[in-house]
Amino acid sequence: MDSTPPRIGDAYDPDCPTRQILDRIGDKWAVLILLTLKDGPVRFNLLRRRIGAISQKMLSQTLKSLEQDGLVSRAAYPTVPVTVEYALTPLAGGLIGILDDITRWAETHVGDIMAARRTHDGAMDEAA
Amino acid sequence: MDSTPPRIGDAYDPDCPTRQILDRIGDKWAVLILLTLKDGPVRFNLLRRRIGAISQKMLSQTLKSLEQDGLVSRAAYPTVPVTVEYALTPLAGGLIGILDDITRWAETHVGDIMAARRTHDGAMDEAA
Repeated sequence: MDSTPPRIGDAYDPDCPTRQILDRIGDKWAVLILLTLKDGPVRFNLLRRRIGAISQKMLSQTLKSLEQDGLVSRAAYPTVPVTVEYALTPLAGGLIGILDDITRWAETHVGDIMAARRTHDGAMDEAA
Repeated sequence: MDSTPPRIGDAYDPDCPTRQILDRIGDKWAVLILLTLKDGPVRFNLLRRRIGAISQKMLSQTLKSLEQDGLVSRAAYPTVPVTVEYALTPLAGGLIGILDDITRWAETHVGDIMAARRTHDGAMDEAA
């Protein structure tokens, strides 16, 4: 018996929303936000500090998209000033491992890719 | 013994190119192109047909970025008209499994995400 859930969408169908979802979950800010929430809820300001060099506007926008997509939940506590915490939803749970893999791949192969760029640019210079 | 290659980059360091690489490999067009090359070299026109609704310009640009990053190789054969084929490099080999996972995740959960969006929009309407 195959326990893999069925695929509902088709990334190769331009009319299927899968393509747009792929765009949203592949966005580097979405990846970094979701991975930062991996170990539990985090407040807005701490999220911003942990991610580094993300503008307040970009962080707000990306969190809003993730909330709309049901990947992040938002809880506000009536403190002064109000405390707002973000957390992963159960739906995001299955995605985290994949985002961890892709980030680890990028972190491991950054040297290979930078070397490929230098080789490519060198070949272009010689051809010019 | 741990045979995992060491991480060289840090996605949380804004000055590390890992972040930019994450952006390039998470791009939906890059994902669809790399997965289309999974089973062997493919010509430009066939790539365009298989992916569907990708403009010639976007396909050219994304292939060029992937070539620069050492993920795709390009071979031109002196036929009339000239035949140009694209193929995965060994470096891309390790990435394909992860891109397959992320696409499968999106295809499987497209229904959950669309439902979350409807619920979210409904709650916003009620609050308005």
